[in-house]
Amino acid sequence: MTDNIQLAPDGGLRHLITTEGLPRTLVEQILDTAETFVPAPGTSPKKVPLLRGKTVFNLFFENSTRTRTTFELAAKRLSADVINMDVAHSSRSKGEDDLDTLYTLQAMGADIFAIRHPENGAAARFAAHAADNVAIINAGDGSHAHPTQALLDVFTIRRHRPDFANLRVAIVGDVRHSRVAHSTIRALRTLGTTDIRVIGPDRFLPENPQALGVQSSDDIAAGLAGADVVMGLRIQRERINGDALEGVADYHQQFGLTTANLAHAKSDALIMHPGPINRGVEINADIAYGNQSVILEQVTNGIAIRMAVMAIIAGNRNAR
Amino acid sequence: MTDNIQLAPDGGLRHLITTEGLPRTLVEQILDTAETFVPAPGTSPKKVPLLRGKTVFNLFFENSTRTRTTFELAAKRLSADVINMDVAHSSRSKGEDDLDTLYTLQAMGADIFAIRHPENGAAARFAAHAADNVAIINAGDGSHAHPTQALLDVFTIRRHRPDFANLRVAIVGDVRHSRVAHSTIRALRTLGTTDIRVIGPDRFLPENPQALGVQSSDDIAAGLAGADVVMGLRIQRERINGDALEGVADYHQQFGLTTANLAHAKSDALIMHPGPINRGVEINADIAYGNQSVILEQVTNGIAIRMAVMAIIAGNRNAR
Amino acid sequence: MTDNIQLAPDGGLRHLITTEGLPRTLVEQILDTAETFVPAPGTSPKKVPLLRGKTVFNLFFENSTRTRTTFELAAKRLSADVINMDVAHSSRSKGEDDLDTLYTLQAMGADIFAIRHPENGAAARFAAHAADNVAIINAGDGSHAHPTQALLDVFTIRRHRPDFANLRVAIVGDVRHSRVAHSTIRALRTLGTTDIRVIGPDRFLPENPQALGVQSSDDIAAGLAGADVVMGLRIQRERINGDALEGVADYHQQFGLTTANLAHAKSDALIMHPGPINRGVEINADIAYGNQSVILEQVTNGIAIRMAVMAIIAGNRNAR
Repeated sequence: MTDNIQLAPDGGLRHLITTEGLPRTLVEQILDTAETFVPAPGTSPKKVPLLRGKTVFNLFFENSTRTRTTFELAAKRLSADVINMDVAHSSRSKGEDDLDTLYTLQAMGADIFAIRHPENGAAARFAAHAADNVAIINAGDGSHAHPTQALLDVFTIRRHRPDFANLRVAIVGDVRHSRVAHSTIRALRTLGTTDIRVIGPDRFLPENPQALGVQSSDDIAAGLAGADVVMGLRIQRERINGDALEGVADYHQQFGLTTANLAHAKSDALIMHPGPINRGVEINADIAYGNQSVILEQVTNGIAIRMAVMAIIAGNRNAR
Repeated sequence: MTDNIQLAPDGGLRHLITTEGLPRTLVEQILDTAETFVPAPGTSPKKVPLLRGKTVFNLFFENSTRTRTTFELAAKRLSADVINMDVAHSSRSKGEDDLDTLYTLQAMGADIFAIRHPENGAAARFAAHAADNVAIINAGDGSHAHPTQALLDVFTIRRHRPDFANLRVAIVGDVRHSRVAHSTIRALRTLGTTDIRVIGPDRFLPENPQALGVQSSDDIAAGLAGADVVMGLRIQRERINGDALEGVADYHQQFGLTTANLAHAKSDALIMHPGPINRGVEINADIAYGNQSVILEQVTNGIAIRMAVMAIIAGNRNAR
Repeated sequence: MTDNIQLAPDGGLRHLITTEGLPRTLVEQILDTAETFVPAPGTSPKKVPLLRGKTVFNLFFENSTRTRTTFELAAKRLSADVINMDVAHSSRSKGEDDLDTLYTLQAMGADIFAIRHPENGAAARFAAHAADNVAIINAGDGSHAHPTQALLDVFTIRRHRPDFANLRVAIVGDVRHSRVAHSTIRALRTLGTTDIRVIGPDRFLPENPQALGVQSSDDIAAGLAGADVVMGLRIQRERINGDALEGVADYHQQFGLTTANLAHAKSDALIMHPGPINRGVEINADIAYGNQSVILEQVTNGIAIRMAVMAIIAGNRNAR
C-alpha cells in the first residue's frame, strides 16, 4: 500500500493523483464526505471553517478557467485562502523548473496544491517531491488522469443508481485521448462495475480495451443497448476530422447523444457529460437539459467532491 | 410591473438590468441604502457581513479591469466570496454558449452575477434564464445600459443638488454610443429632472433626442448655459476622427471640459465624469481635480451603490 | 528626517520605497516584527487579524506572478482583502495616467498599495501623490529598488549571522542592472556591514562602486575569498552575451555558484539567491538545494517581511 504515492503510511488519503489504485474504502470515504457538502435543492451551498487559515494554490500550467473555478470555489467554501497562479509552460520549460516552482511555493506556506499540467504524470512527479506537510491534488495532467472529475462522476451515479455491481455504463466519444474517461472507468471498476462499454469511431477507441477492462464498439446501437448510464465526452471539432468544419454533422448523427441514438439505451438511462458541452456536436441541448440529464448535478457535485478531498486530506494531516 | 424582468412579484428588486423602467421607489431605496455604505471622509470603508457565505461571480465577457474591481471590492466589503471569470467572447460564440456558462456557474452555487458583455441586451437574456435563487446585475452590455454607473451618477448629484426637479444637466461627448449616458438620462428622468441637454459634434448626438427626453446641441456655449451639472463622457481618441491623431486638439477646444468652455455653465456647476479620464481630450486635469469636480466622489460612491444593490437583492431573496 | 518621503512626521514608517535612507531603527523594527511571523519549521504560517477590514491593492504595471503572489499571501495572512490589478503600461502611457489610476483606486477605499513598475522612481512618485490615509510599498521599480527583497535578505542573514559588522558579503552577477543588489547593499550598510564585494564580468559591475560602498572584482577567486555570505543574482540568458545561446557555459564556469567556485568562500558560507534560479546559469541545483543554501528560507522570510511591513504601516496609521 505504501508504494502508492497517494496514501499516507496509515492508509489515509495523502495526495489525490489518480483513481487508479485508489482503494475502495478511500473512494467511499470521499463520496460519503461529499454528501455532507451537497446543498439542498434551490439553496446556496454552506461555507464551513474546515480549512480556515490554510492556503490552497491553484497552480495551472495550462489554462482551464472552469476547472480552476471549481477548485477556487471549493477551497473558499472551506474558508481557505486561495491563490490562483497561471504559470506559462513553454515547450522549453524543463521538469526541473516545475520543481523549483513547487519548492518556492511550498516555502511560502502552501498547504494544498491543485495542479493542472499538460504532461502525463506531472501530478505524481510533484507529489514525489512535495514536502511532508504539503498535499497535491491532480486537476488534470495531460491525457493521463482527472481524478476529481472521475469521483464526481461516480458520486453522481451513486446518488441515482447506487448498485454499481449491476450497472451497464456506456461512454461515447474520444475515449482514447480522454483523461476523464480513463479516470472514470477506473473509479467505476473500483466500485464494482464490470459492464463498461466505450463507443466511438475507431480512431477514438482505446488501443487496448481489455487492459482498461472495457468492451469497445464503433456501433452506437449495439453499444448503448441496455445502458443504465450514458456518458458523452467533450469533442473538440478539430479532432473529428483534423478539420473543424468537416465531418461534424456525420459525427453528430452517428455518435451524438440525440433522441434517436439514445433510443437504444434504457428509457430512464442517466445522461452525463463532463462539460462544457458542444451543442450539435457530441450532444443536443434538449438532451443536455432534459429529464434524464444529470449534467448540471455533476457540476454541483464537483464542488462537493473537491471540498471533500481537501477536507479529508487536511484532516488526515492534522491528525498526524 | 411583473413584465419588468428586474422586479420580483412583490415589486422588490430581483435583478438590476437597466435604469429604464426602474420605479422611483426602488431607485430611492438603492440611493438611501448606499448612504449607509459611504465612508466618512478620510476613513476606510467598513466591512459588513451582509453577504457572508454568498458567492458573487464577476463574469466578464469583455475586459474591464476597473469595473470588475469595483464589483469585486463591493462584494468583498459585504463579506461575500468573489470569483473573477474572464470569458473569451469570440465572434463565433453563440448566445447558447453563454447560457451554458450561466447554467454551469449556477450549478456551482453562484448567488449573484455581475455580468459585462459586448452585446446589447445580454444582461436581460441572462436574467430571463437565471434560476430562481440567482440574481443578475448588469455591469455594462454593449451600448445598451450600465445601470450601476447611472445610479452612482444620480447618487452623487443627490448628495450635492437634491432638488432633481429644478436641475439643468448637460452631458458632453459621444452620447450616441454611450451606455453610461443612456442609463444616466433615464435615472435622472425617473427622479424628476426634465432639463437635460446633450452636447457634442453631430455624429455623437443621439438620432432621436426626443425619445430620450433630452435636447441636443452642437454648440457648447448654448448647451452649457445655466447648467447645474456638467458631465463629460470618456472619448476614445480613435472615435474622434477615425484617426487617433487627427482632430483631438479641435475636439478639446470645442467640446472639452476646460476653463473656457465651463465659463458658460453656472459658476458652481458640479463637474462629473465616469472615468477613466483622457487628459487633454474630453477634460483638463485642473478641471478634473478642481474644486467643482466630484469625479473622485463618483468613484467612492460607485462602491457604495454596488454594495447597496447587492445587499438589497440578497435581502429580498432571503425574505422570500 | 521629514524630507524622507517614507517617514511619518513622528519618524515611523509611512511608506516603503527604498532601503536608501531608511533608518536603522526602522530596519530593525521591521526585522523584529517579521520574527513573529516566521512559522515554526514544518508548520503552516498562522493567519492573524491585524489588517481585517483593510484593502490591499497589488497594482502591477509589469508582470511578476511570483512577487505578486508574495504580497497577496502576506496580505491575506494579515486578513486583509486583496485586489490584484495588472495594469498594462505601454510606452505611450504617461506618468499622469498612473496618477489618475492612483487617485481612482484611492477613492475606492484602498489602504495599502504594493506597486510594481518598470520605471525607476515610480514608487516615490506614487508616494508623493498618495492620500494621507494611503500607504505605498515598492514591489520593484525599474532597476532602482526592491526594498522588501533587501529586507528579507538581511533578515535571512541576521537569523544565521547576526554580527553584521564582522561580515564579508559577496554578490555575484549582474549587479549593474539589479534593483535587488542595490537595495540589499544599502540595507547591509545600514546594519553595519562594510565588507561588501560585487563580482562579475566587467559590463555587469557598477560604474561607481565607491559610491555604493563596495569593492568590485571580475575575479571570482579573489572576490569570494573569505566570504561569509555569497549571494547569486538572477541572470537572464539574454543578458550574458546579447544572445541567449552564446557564452552561457563560459559564464557558468567563471561566475556560476558551483562547487568549484564556492571553494574560494568560507566552507560554511551562506548561499543566497533572490529566485527564481536559472539552473546551470548562475547557480547549480546541488548548490541551490544544498546544506549551505538558505534560498528557500529567503522565500519563507519574504512573506514574514511583507507581513511585517504592512502590519507596521497599518499600525502607525491607526495610532495617528
